[in-house]
Amino acid sequence: MSFNTFGKIFRFTTWGESHGPAIGCVVDGCPPNIKISEKDIQNELNKRKPGQSKFTSQRKEDDKINILSGIFDGKTTGTPISMIIYNKDMRSRDYETIKNKFRPGHADLTYYKKYGIRDYRGGGRQSARETASRVAAGAIAKKVLENKIGKKYAVTGAVTQLGILGCNLKNWDEKFISKNPFFCPDKTILKLWEKYLLSIRKAGSSCGAIIEIRAYGIPAGLGAPIYSKLDMDLASAMMSINAVKGVNIGSGMNSAQLTGEENSDEIFKMGKKTKFKSNNAGGILGGISSGQNIIVSFAVKPTSSILTSRKTIDKFGKNTSISVKGRHDPCVGIRAVPIGEAMMHCVILDHYLMNSAQCKS
Amino acid sequence: MSFNTFGKIFRFTTWGESHGPAIGCVVDGCPPNIKISEKDIQNELNKRKPGQSKFTSQRKEDDKINILSGIFDGKTTGTPISMIIYNKDMRSRDYETIKNKFRPGHADLTYYKKYGIRDYRGGGRQSARETASRVAAGAIAKKVLENKIGKKYAVTGAVTQLGILGCNLKNWDEKFISKNPFFCPDKTILKLWEKYLLSIRKAGSSCGAIIEIRAYGIPAGLGAPIYSKLDMDLASAMMSINAVKGVNIGSGMNSAQLTGEENSDEIFKMGKKTKFKSNNAGGILGGISSGQNIIVSFAVKPTSSILTSRKTIDKFGKNTSISVKGRHDPCVGIRAVPIGEAMMHCVILDHYLMNSAQCKS
Amino acid sequence: MSFNTFGKIFRFTTWGESHGPAIGCVVDGCPPNIKISEKDIQNELNKRKPGQSKFTSQRKEDDKINILSGIFDGKTTGTPISMIIYNKDMRSRDYETIKNKFRPGHADLTYYKKYGIRDYRGGGRQSARETASRVAAGAIAKKVLENKIGKKYAVTGAVTQLGILGCNLKNWDEKFISKNPFFCPDKTILKLWEKYLLSIRKAGSSCGAIIEIRAYGIPAGLGAPIYSKLDMDLASAMMSINAVKGVNIGSGMNSAQLTGEENSDEIFKMGKKTKFKSNNAGGILGGISSGQNIIVSFAVKPTSSILTSRKTIDKFGKNTSISVKGRHDPCVGIRAVPIGEAMMHCVILDHYLMNSAQCKS
Amino acid sequence: MSFNTFGKIFRFTTWGESHGPAIGCVVDGCPPNIKISEKDIQNELNKRKPGQSKFTSQRKEDDKINILSGIFDGKTTGTPISMIIYNKDMRSRDYETIKNKFRPGHADLTYYKKYGIRDYRGGGRQSARETASRVAAGAIAKKVLENKIGKKYAVTGAVTQLGILGCNLKNWDEKFISKNPFFCPDKTILKLWEKYLLSIRKAGSSCGAIIEIRAYGIPAGLGAPIYSKLDMDLASAMMSINAVKGVNIGSGMNSAQLTGEENSDEIFKMGKKTKFKSNNAGGILGGISSGQNIIVSFAVKPTSSILTSRKTIDKFGKNTSISVKGRHDPCVGIRAVPIGEAMMHCVILDHYLMNSAQCKS
Repeated sequence: MSFNTFGKIFRFTTWGESHGPAIGCVVDGCPPNIKISEKDIQNELNKRKPGQSKFTSQRKEDDKINILSGIFDGKTTGTPISMIIYNKDMRSRDYETIKNKFRPGHADLTYYKKYGIRDYRGGGRQSARETASRVAAGAIAKKVLENKIGKKYAVTGAVTQLGILGCNLKNWDEKFISKNPFFCPDKTILKLWEKYLLSIRKAGSSCGAIIEIRAYGIPAGLGAPIYSKLDMDLASAMMSINAVKGVNIGSGMNSAQLTGEENSDEIFKMGKKTKFKSNNAGGILGGISSGQNIIVSFAVKPTSSILTSRKTIDKFGKNTSISVKGRHDPCVGIRAVPIGEAMMHCVILDHYLMNSAQCKS
Repeated sequence: MSFNTFGKIFRFTTWGESHGPAIGCVVDGCPPNIKISEKDIQNELNKRKPGQSKFTSQRKEDDKINILSGIFDGKTTGTPISMIIYNKDMRSRDYETIKNKFRPGHADLTYYKKYGIRDYRGGGRQSARETASRVAAGAIAKKVLENKIGKKYAVTGAVTQLGILGCNLKNWDEKFISKNPFFCPDKTILKLWEKYLLSIRKAGSSCGAIIEIRAYGIPAGLGAPIYSKLDMDLASAMMSINAVKGVNIGSGMNSAQLTGEENSDEIFKMGKKTKFKSNNAGGILGGISSGQNIIVSFAVKPTSSILTSRKTIDKFGKNTSISVKGRHDPCVGIRAVPIGEAMMHCVILDHYLMNSAQCKS
Repeated sequence: MSFNTFGKIFRFTTWGESHGPAIGCVVDGCPPNIKISEKDIQNELNKRKPGQSKFTSQRKEDDKINILSGIFDGKTTGTPISMIIYNKDMRSRDYETIKNKFRPGHADLTYYKKYGIRDYRGGGRQSARETASRVAAGAIAKKVLENKIGKKYAVTGAVTQLGILGCNLKNWDEKFISKNPFFCPDKTILKLWEKYLLSIRKAGSSCGAIIEIRAYGIPAGLGAPIYSKLDMDLASAMMSINAVKGVNIGSGMNSAQLTGEENSDEIFKMGKKTKFKSNNAGGILGGISSGQNIIVSFAVKPTSSILTSRKTIDKFGKNTSISVKGRHDPCVGIRAVPIGEAMMHCVILDHYLMNSAQCKS
Repeated sequence: MSFNTFGKIFRFTTWGESHGPAIGCVVDGCPPNIKISEKDIQNELNKRKPGQSKFTSQRKEDDKINILSGIFDGKTTGTPISMIIYNKDMRSRDYETIKNKFRPGHADLTYYKKYGIRDYRGGGRQSARETASRVAAGAIAKKVLENKIGKKYAVTGAVTQLGILGCNLKNWDEKFISKNPFFCPDKTILKLWEKYLLSIRKAGSSCGAIIEIRAYGIPAGLGAPIYSKLDMDLASAMMSINAVKGVNIGSGMNSAQLTGEENSDEIFKMGKKTKFKSNNAGGILGGISSGQNIIVSFAVKPTSSILTSRKTIDKFGKNTSISVKGRHDPCVGIRAVPIGEAMMHCVILDHYLMNSAQCKS
C-alpha cells in the first residue's frame, strides 16, 4: 500500500503542501552509476513553471531543485535520491476569504470528509504544486533510460485539443511543440488557439484540454500480464495527475466505433524489422509493448477556480457561494504536458527494470 | 510487485490458461464472518457465460465454481479463499492452423517477444477466460460491501455504445438492463442494436463498445492522495480488462470541451444532506469519493479475431496472412459488463478497507 | 500488503486449511523457459512427509502435487504456476473433544480473538500443513537458481540441536544428513539423539530443536539497503515458519559475547578470489551477500500438543484443562528442515531477480 | 518492493548518507488529527545522541529535527510527514586514509560488489546515522498509539547483556534504565559493566550486546497469518538495524532446549481477564498478539572499527591491512536501544492499522 508512492521498482514518494516550507520527493530503486546533475532536473522543471506567458498563472514559483542524497561524484549510487524545492511565494492571505468554503470542482470537500481537516492554504496537499516533484522524478527516469536504451529513446508531449478546438495530428511537428507556450504540435492552428484562450481568460472562465504523450524507441516486451500491464500502469499514472478525467491508449475511446478490420494493426516484416500498418493499439498489445511508439492521451478538466459565482456550502453546513479571484490558469491542461511526460518516463523505466528482473537470462 | 495480483488490502491473485486443466483465483484480505456461498458466486459468473444468445460466442463454458478454502460453516474466516473452475470445453485442435502465426490485435506477438514462448492454445494466459476469476472475486467483494454498507450499496453496468450506435442515457432503465442480452439500458434503441450486430456477425466482422459502470450508495471519503486515488485505481482496474483501450471518470474525455462553469458540480445542502447539481466529476474529487454515485465508462475494442484475411508474420519471421474462423463474439464488449462490475466491487471494497485502516478513530 | 503472500518479485501465495478439501499455492514472478516437472516438486515434498519414521507423526499425508498452470511443454511460461495438494487423511473426529478449548502454545486463542471464529479442525489455517505449499514453491525456486547460477548452487539444512543435545558442527557431513531421519549432520551423536527422542516420546512429552540452513555458491551483491536487506528477509522467512521463535545469521545471538577482534571476518585475496578467514557474518555484510556461504539458523519450540494435562480456558471463558492425545511429533523441529531449505531458495531467488532489475547494465 | 521503505500501512522511507548535506525520512499512512510537535520527536532523538557519556562516540551529532510537511495547526493531516536533519559534523578527512580499503565487518566490500561504487565517507548509506530517521518515525508511531490505545501503551528497551556480562532480568527496573548511560535494567550489575567497558575501550577493542524491547498494553489480535505475522515483521524490523545478527521472540533460541511442558504458557481466567502463567511465547502465538506483553530481544555484534590492525583488501584487489582510529563506540549495541524501541512502535502501529482494516465491523 502506498498512499504517496508511485512505482514498483523505480519508486518515488512525494511530500509537501503548496503553502508549507517546502515540497519534495524521494526516488528509490534508481540504478547506480548513472550521471545526473541538478541541471538535468532543473531543465525539466522549468518546462512546467508558471508565469512563463500570459496563458498560464502569474505566480512566480521558482522551483529551484536541491539534491540531498543518492548522488556521489556526479553519479547515482543506487541509494535513495532525495530532492527538495523550497516554497517561496506563499501568499496565504489570498486564501483567507475562502477559508471555510468548499470550492466546487476542487477536493476541499472530499478531503474534509475523509480527514476531518480543512487545510485551506491553496489546496494543501491536493494542490497541483505536488506535480513539481513528479517532474523531478521523471527527469531522473529519463536520464536512466537514455543511458540504458540510448539516443533513440525519447518522449514528447503536446496539447492536441484546447477546449472546443482540436488540431490536425498530421501536422505534428516535434520542434514546434517546445517553441510555443501551448505545447501545440500544429503550426496552422496556433493563432486560433491564442485568440480562443484570451477570450476565455478575459471572461474569467476556463477550458479543458487533451494532452497526448508519445514515447519513441521503446523495446518490445515491456509490461506484464495480468495486473502489471503497461497500459494499466500508464492509465493509473495519467489519472493520478490533478484534474485528469479520462485516459486513452492509442485509439482509446474511439476504438468502440471501429470494426475489427479497421482496428487491428496488421503486421509485416521489412528486412529484419517487425512493422505495423497502423497503431490503433498505441504500441501495446495484451498489456505488453509491441515495439511501436507508445501513444497515450488524457483529458484535463477546466480549471475549477473561476470568476463566476458558484453555489457551494461551507464547513458549517450552510449554503453559500464562491467566486475565485487571484492568479489562476485559464487552462491548467497546458501545464500538464511536462507532468505527463514525466509520468511516461517513470512508468517506462519501472517496466524496463521489471523486465530485466523477470526475463533476462 | 504483483504480476497477477490485484488490490492492496482486498487482493486477488488469478492463475490459469484458457486450455489448461483449470483456472482460478485466491482472494486474500477478505474480512471474517461474512456469509458467502458458492451460489452467490455462481450467480455472478452466469452473467458472463458465453453461449447465452446468438450475440455471444457459442462455446459452452460451464464455469462451475468450487470454493476450496477460507469459508467455514458458511462464513468467511479471514483466511484466503481459493476458488477453482475446471476447464471442460478445450478443443485445442481449433488452434492448430494458427499455431505459429501471430494474430494481429492479439497479444501473441508481444508474449512471444517477452517470454520467448508461444502458447498458441486460445491465447493461453492472455485469453479473456481469466476474467471468470475476477468475476468470482468481485462476487465476494459485493457480499462484503452489502454487509458493511447495507442495502443502498449497488453496482450496475450497461453497454452504452455498440459500435457506431449510441443510446440515450436519459432512458437508463436498471431493470431492463438485466433482461436483454446486450445489457442495453435504453429500451428504445434495442431493436436497432440487434439488427446492427446481426449484420456485423454475418459479415464475419466485429465491433467495439462502450460500457458504463455505476456504483450507488458509496460513502464520501474513499480514496487517498496522491497515488492511491480512487479514480486512479478504477482506471487501472478497467484498463486491465482484455481489449479495453480507454477509461473515463464522469464526463471523462469530454471534460476537455467544457468550460469551468459547465464542468464544476455546484454543491448545496438539502436538509442535512450534501447534494450536487450535476455529476461531471463521476463522484470523485481529488481522488476521493464525494458521496455521489461513482460513474466509470470504458471502451472495448472490436474482437480482433475476424473472418477477413489479415496480414501478419509467423514465429519464423515470415510474412503470411491469417483468417480466424471458429467461435468468436462479434462484440466482446458485451461480455465485459459483469467484469467491469466485478472490478468496481473490488476497488470499492479495497478503498473501504483502506479507509477503515487510516481514518477511523 | 500481503497476508498470505511471500516475496517481492518471485512471490508465492498459499491457501488452504488442514482439514479442507485441499491446500495449494500460486507462484508468481517465475522466469520463463525453466524446465520443471511435477517430479522435481514431489521429490522436495517427500522430504517433509510425516510417517517416515517412528520419530515423526504417523499421519499419512500423501502430499501428491498437481500443477494446474504456468508450465507448457515442460517449461515455465512466465505466467503463474498454480499447484494443488488434495487432503486425504482428514480425521476431523480426532478434534471433537477439543472443539471449544484453546490449546496452550497454539494459535487457537489468538485466531479466535482476531477473527471471532474457532476453526477447530486441526488448527485450520494455522496448521503446519500450510508449509507443504512453501516446499512446493521452494522446489521451483531451486530449479530456477540451478539454471541461473549453475551447479555450484546448493542449499542444505540440518538439525544441529535436539532439545538439550547439541552436535559437533565440525563433523558436518552433507551426505549423512539425508540418510538419517533426524537430518542430523554429525554421525557421532546420532545414537544419543535416538535414545533421547524415544524417551521424550514415551513420556508423551516433546522437545525443541535448532535447524541450520546453509546456502552455497551465492554470488556477492544480493540484498539491498536498508529495508530489503538479505538477512532481514531471511529472518522474516524463517520466523514465518510455524513454531519458530528465534533466528540467527552467522554467529547470531552469540555475536553479543564476541570482541571486535574475534568477530569481524578478515578479508584476503587468493589468486583472483576474495576470501575470508572466518564466517561470523554468515555471508552477509550490511544486508548484502559477500560471496561467502549464507548461514542461517533458527529455533523451533517444542510441540505444544502433549499428553500432560495443561490448564487453559474454553470459548465460553471458563477455566478448564486439556491433554492432547492423537498423532503428534515429539519434535516438530525435525520436519522444519525442508521448510527452511525451501524458504532459503525462495529468498535467494527473490534477491537474485531484484539484483538483476537494479544493478545489471 | 521497497528498498528504503519500511511498513505496510504506516510506512516510512529514509534517505541520506552520513556525510551528505542532510538525512531524513517521509512517513506515510499516519492517521489524521493526532497532536505531534517537533519536540515530541526531538525527545526520542536525544536518546540516541552520541557524545552523551564516555561510553559512546564523542562525535557531536546534533540531530535537530525539522518537520517539513504533514502537520497543520499542530495536528497530523493524513498526508505525508517529511522530516529532515541537517548534517553538521562532517569531518570527511577522517576517512581519507581508508578511502580505497574495505573495512572488515563493514559493508564496504559488499556495497562495492553490488553497485560498483565506493562511497568511503563514513560508510555512506550503510552508516548507522540512517537510524536517526527511524527514531523520528518511531516517535510519530508512539504518539499515534498513545492516542489510539491510551496510557497503558508503553515500550521500554534495555541492554540485557554487555559483551560477556549478562544481567539479572528479575531486577528489571524501568526507571533505572533511563538514568544510566548503558540502558541497563539491573542496578546490581552496573558497576561491573562500567569497569568492563572501560577496559574494552582502553584496549581499542569493542564488544557486542543483547538488547531487549518490551511492549506493554498491546491488544490481542494484532498480526496476521501467514506472511504478515507480527513476530515475522518484528524479526524483520530488528534485523534491519545495523549490526544486528540474531532476533528472539520470547524465549527465542532457548526454546530449543525446553520441553513442551516447560514451554507452552498455560492460560486461565482471572475475573474477566485472560491471563497466562508464563510468557515463553513473548506475547505472540501463531503470529498474532495474545494480549500479553510483547518481548523481543536481539544481538548487536561488536563494533567492527577497532584499533587492532586487521587483514583486508583494497579496491584494486591487493592484500593490505587496516586499523581504524577516530571516534567510535566501544559497544554500538548501547545506541541500538532507542532504535529497537522505534522499530517496535512502528511495527505495532502498522499491525494496529491493518487490524482495523480487516477485522473491525
